[in-house]
Amino acid sequence: MNDQELLGPLIAPNTTKLVLVVLDGVGGMPIDGVSELEGAKAPNLSLLAAGSACGLQVPVAYGITPGSGPGHLGIFGYDPLEWEIGRGVLEALGLGIHLTGNDIAVRCNYATAVREGTRVIIKDRRAGRIPTDHSAKITGMLQEQIRQIDDAQVILLPGMEHRFALVLRFPSLLDEGAGAIEDTDPQKEGLEPVAPSPSNAAARHVAGIALGFVERAARILKDQETANYVLLRGFSSVPRIPRFNEVYGLKSLAIATYPMYLGLAKLIGMDTLKVSGGISEEIRALGENYDRYDFFYVHIKKTDSNGEDGNFRGKCRVIEEFDAALPGILSLGPDVLVITGDHSTPALIKGHSWHPVPVLLKSRYVFGKTSSAFTERECLKGELGILHSTDIMPLMLANGMRLKKFGA
Amino acid sequence: MNDQELLGPLIAPNTTKLVLVVLDGVGGMPIDGVSELEGAKAPNLSLLAAGSACGLQVPVAYGITPGSGPGHLGIFGYDPLEWEIGRGVLEALGLGIHLTGNDIAVRCNYATAVREGTRVIIKDRRAGRIPTDHSAKITGMLQEQIRQIDDAQVILLPGMEHRFALVLRFPSLLDEGAGAIEDTDPQKEGLEPVAPSPSNAAARHVAGIALGFVERAARILKDQETANYVLLRGFSSVPRIPRFNEVYGLKSLAIATYPMYLGLAKLIGMDTLKVSGGISEEIRALGENYDRYDFFYVHIKKTDSNGEDGNFRGKCRVIEEFDAALPGILSLGPDVLVITGDHSTPALIKGHSWHPVPVLLKSRYVFGKTSSAFTERECLKGELGILHSTDIMPLMLANGMRLKKFGA
Repeated sequence: MNDQELLGPLIAPNTTKLVLVVLDGVGGMPIDGVSELEGAKAPNLSLLAAGSACGLQVPVAYGITPGSGPGHLGIFGYDPLEWEIGRGVLEALGLGIHLTGNDIAVRCNYATAVREGTRVIIKDRRAGRIPTDHSAKITGMLQEQIRQIDDAQVILLPGMEHRFALVLRFPSLLDEGAGAIEDTDPQKEGLEPVAPSPSNAAARHVAGIALGFVERAARILKDQETANYVLLRGFSSVPRIPRFNEVYGLKSLAIATYPMYLGLAKLIGMDTLKVSGGISEEIRALGENYDRYDFFYVHIKKTDSNGEDGNFRGKCRVIEEFDAALPGILSLGPDVLVITGDHSTPALIKGHSWHPVPVLLKSRYVFGKTSSAFTERECLKGELGILHSTDIMPLMLANGMRLKKFGA
Repeated sequence: MNDQELLGPLIAPNTTKLVLVVLDGVGGMPIDGVSELEGAKAPNLSLLAAGSACGLQVPVAYGITPGSGPGHLGIFGYDPLEWEIGRGVLEALGLGIHLTGNDIAVRCNYATAVREGTRVIIKDRRAGRIPTDHSAKITGMLQEQIRQIDDAQVILLPGMEHRFALVLRFPSLLDEGAGAIEDTDPQKEGLEPVAPSPSNAAARHVAGIALGFVERAARILKDQETANYVLLRGFSSVPRIPRFNEVYGLKSLAIATYPMYLGLAKLIGMDTLKVSGGISEEIRALGENYDRYDFFYVHIKKTDSNGEDGNFRGKCRVIEEFDAALPGILSLGPDVLVITGDHSTPALIKGHSWHPVPVLLKSRYVFGKTSSAFTERECLKGELGILHSTDIMPLMLANGMRLKKFGA
């Protein structure tokens, strides 16, 4: 029995407020002996940790480095080994489109390519992270000229910087597996792009249309200085996943600045709120909507971005910025507050990693006094121990007095 | 999904070197307040532990005392509840024979028996641990006189001290379950040997042949002073188990002094190297082969032997001997070094036990500074927490940067 099946009959109504803050990629690694969380000056977090249940959560399994999808699914209580969500679907949902079983969604990058003889070589997989407004302009240009390929309607959604999403909308329901197509992104600069190759018969037709899109886009973009090529990643169709609010008996709101995280929340049926700005704007939005929901997922992105860039001090500063904003959450007096990450993104590794992620849970029903700070090594001493990410939702519900007794 | 299925699509090539040292039965229990690991003077291990990820690993499950087979399988990432390898198969493989599905392998002991009226009583289950050369001589004598029983070819393989292996080679593929035959070893001195009793229909024919072997051997050995009887243990057929190198994308070498551990490594497809001598010879062999493989399993036996004998100080001395040899491993600069045991063998218990086993993992990607020594109680403070033995391989691969990200 997975956790959600166990919880189903135990869900009890209540009016308690539950807040889950996800500091994306917050877990780090020591450089010169201290990790990002250890190096940041975060007195509010330290004080909170000292009075909270602390621990470390394993997003998927020991040694497994999660993508953002599995990282978030686990925290939301969905076994990431059972539920797989393609990145294309996440990206497209986050850009505000409603997807159905007729759709294949693809996450795309503008890239910089050069021609060497007959070969196309990718020089920059992100086209120098072109500004979002320029990206939107050329996405509009592509959309104007590519509206249909074969029987697929082509829908383009502008994203942030070099990113956009492609949705191929077919006239009828697709076979499961129709999205099983390899990325065209060669993953490293200096290599040729890969042809979109189907992994099964159902995907073959879709792959042909995807190749057509790449070729037509390349022709249209050929005179662009940097964004003169497109890379397609994360081909995916829409999974049938239980809805968060129904599973847990909660009315939930997701607050984020980045599309993908709102897309993930939409997929499981949360209401979503896109916030412009940074951490303090997100916390203000939390306050403004506090009476209207009982569960809040607040996503903070820049911890991960700095980790990915190998910017140790930058990541520390984001933690410090969150620390300064933390009283704004505490002043709302949530019955249950959880702070964790969806995975670790150590600046040392410049990417996601497999390391367990610090987690703290504050409620009336914790022991506390085990951990002097919200750091990897202090959380290791905490009363939650090393737990699985999917244990977090049951703990939040329990601490919110929203679970009945199991068995007589 | 088990760990190996999860890992399959994530395996990434790399040139990193992974070294796994198994100190057999290293986990202990306090006598006069300190365990063997706590009593041993092991400054190099302590220093290493201080800079490593430490933890305790549960070989099979809480409370379950593993044999050497399950203990090792778990460390190698094979769920010991899914894969069962008979001790006879291990022993025979370790003695250098190639087994097929036509074979039943049995681990045998020479024993000392006395006749009391019509009863045979086992006075020494190991025939005083007779010297290996004498054992080889009488094994040759038996083989000369017993070549065939019914339709089974009889193959005898001399082992160390009182041990030898029996392979019954049938003309055709055996049913699964044909090796399900009870040990004839009464487990305690002063008892009668047990008849080889089949657990199912397929095993009945094999059991009859085994009984014939015991009776013929007893007649041939009746004038021997100590080794005048044989005890049969671990009847087993060959399981179909995935190959280590294919599962993990590694080229692996097993280094050991005892046959059974090489046999286990062979079964999962490792190359094997039998070393004569002790710990320093094994580490020298590691150095000599360091360029030719990327994964090394180094098995050190005597920690277990001393534990089995209840020799607390002897076990401490083996730990100290390993500690003195440790710099020889460190000087190779492995990207990932794991030191653990396949199970605990506390001198207090004089046998294997269920206690979780200390584990340390050294790589660039650990926190460290949690544990001041490689002991049960210090490892408990470590960042690995209490984990399952099957988590070790994923962690070694992750720390060796040999796993791709899971999900988008």
